[in-house]
Amino acid sequence: MSTKELLKHARSLQQKKFRDLHGEFLVQGPKVVGELLSSGWPVVEVLATAEQAGRMGLRQAVIVPAYELERVGTLETGNEVIAIARKPAPDGFEALGADELVLALDGIADPGNLGTVLRVADWFGIRRVLCSHGSVDAFIPKCVQSSMGGIFRVRVHYSDLVPLLAREAAAGVAVYAADMGGVSVFSERLQRPAVLVLGSESHGLSAEVRAVAGRVIAVPRNGGAESLNVAVAASALCMEFARQGGVAQ
Amino acid sequence: MSTKELLKHARSLQQKKFRDLHGEFLVQGPKVVGELLSSGWPVVEVLATAEQAGRMGLRQAVIVPAYELERVGTLETGNEVIAIARKPAPDGFEALGADELVLALDGIADPGNLGTVLRVADWFGIRRVLCSHGSVDAFIPKCVQSSMGGIFRVRVHYSDLVPLLAREAAAGVAVYAADMGGVSVFSERLQRPAVLVLGSESHGLSAEVRAVAGRVIAVPRNGGAESLNVAVAASALCMEFARQGGVAQ
Repeated sequence: MSTKELLKHARSLQQKKFRDLHGEFLVQGPKVVGELLSSGWPVVEVLATAEQAGRMGLRQAVIVPAYELERVGTLETGNEVIAIARKPAPDGFEALGADELVLALDGIADPGNLGTVLRVADWFGIRRVLCSHGSVDAFIPKCVQSSMGGIFRVRVHYSDLVPLLAREAAAGVAVYAADMGGVSVFSERLQRPAVLVLGSESHGLSAEVRAVAGRVIAVPRNGGAESLNVAVAASALCMEFARQGGVAQ
Repeated sequence: MSTKELLKHARSLQQKKFRDLHGEFLVQGPKVVGELLSSGWPVVEVLATAEQAGRMGLRQAVIVPAYELERVGTLETGNEVIAIARKPAPDGFEALGADELVLALDGIADPGNLGTVLRVADWFGIRRVLCSHGSVDAFIPKCVQSSMGGIFRVRVHYSDLVPLLAREAAAGVAVYAADMGGVSVFSERLQRPAVLVLGSESHGLSAEVRAVAGRVIAVPRNGGAESLNVAVAASALCMEFARQGGVAQ
């Protein structure tokens, strides 16, 4: 592939249909490309300006002028280095480990929110996030960037959420749904293995998910806000899972 | 003021210098304008399309065509209703109440993050947020929108943070700084009244703030993430303040 073709190919990966077709996605900017390279995740190609390649010690990078990279990248700043990474092959969702906590997202639409949830999961040592079909693609550039490298350490599965949750519940997994109408998480003795389901920002939890969840838990509220951002709610609830689980999982 | 002049005036409030000059700011979209109107906050004017005014029952609104409002508003969707609200007069930062928790932000630059912190504070019943001088303006449209009404219930003060923290510490207030190098918040017996200081996303905590803080506390980490978003970290730490404080403050 000529550099011109490579740039055109890279640019096409801004669109989901080309990410799916080629099984590749974009990673942008020094910070997240650095996370990619140190993670051991399969890399197809790295494009960089000569300066940036020098700064980052990228010996294998394809050197491209800055104005060409600006046409490929979606960042306000940081387009001097852009990597093409391999998407993982889809696989089944395996049974939970004994002490495992998995997050599930029921219809998340905002890629920045999904990325921030992955960053939260990555912080708390959560390895898997389930998304309902129809949720936003985790490999969209905005999500990859917001995850701050979390996408390389937290596996995202797309599934038909209700049957999967029902199957897990039947197998003895504690299924918790987060909703402000639930009981305070502080009053719960949290069980593991567990799946914690968070609803979409605009529609909350679906009735089907609510029905299959064993317990509905809430972040205790003491003020006037009507709701919390999904990543902020995930962070608050993961704190209590971490505390009750003795942090190390 | 003619409608034309009013629209021009409203549009000028996208810029800080005009917000400061007129002591007014913009509130956009049905959700946040609804929060404004139900909060009792002083409103200067509401501009809306005839349809939107009908839907929201806005009898006092100035009716304006949609294309005119699109030129004033900054939202992707929701510009059919835009309010001009009065900025509060700057006032001093009063001593903390006996059980009060105040958040302080050391150099926050992203308006979406500041707004989300205000939404978190609003959820947990925190009434005051301190920002260091040079932090982003809380009345910038993006912050107002991300706060989801939090801006109407949580007071934002701008101050010279280090002397203020030193004064509060001398008066017996527990000053906590959040930093991933700190001790786990789970191992702390959290005191009140308290100020919890969070650093900027790009530079973390300044040495001066670190020196004046009594204790440096962390959200325990069990995974690979390098850091947490400031609003996510605020949420995690406020959880533990809420739990140890018995939630009601």
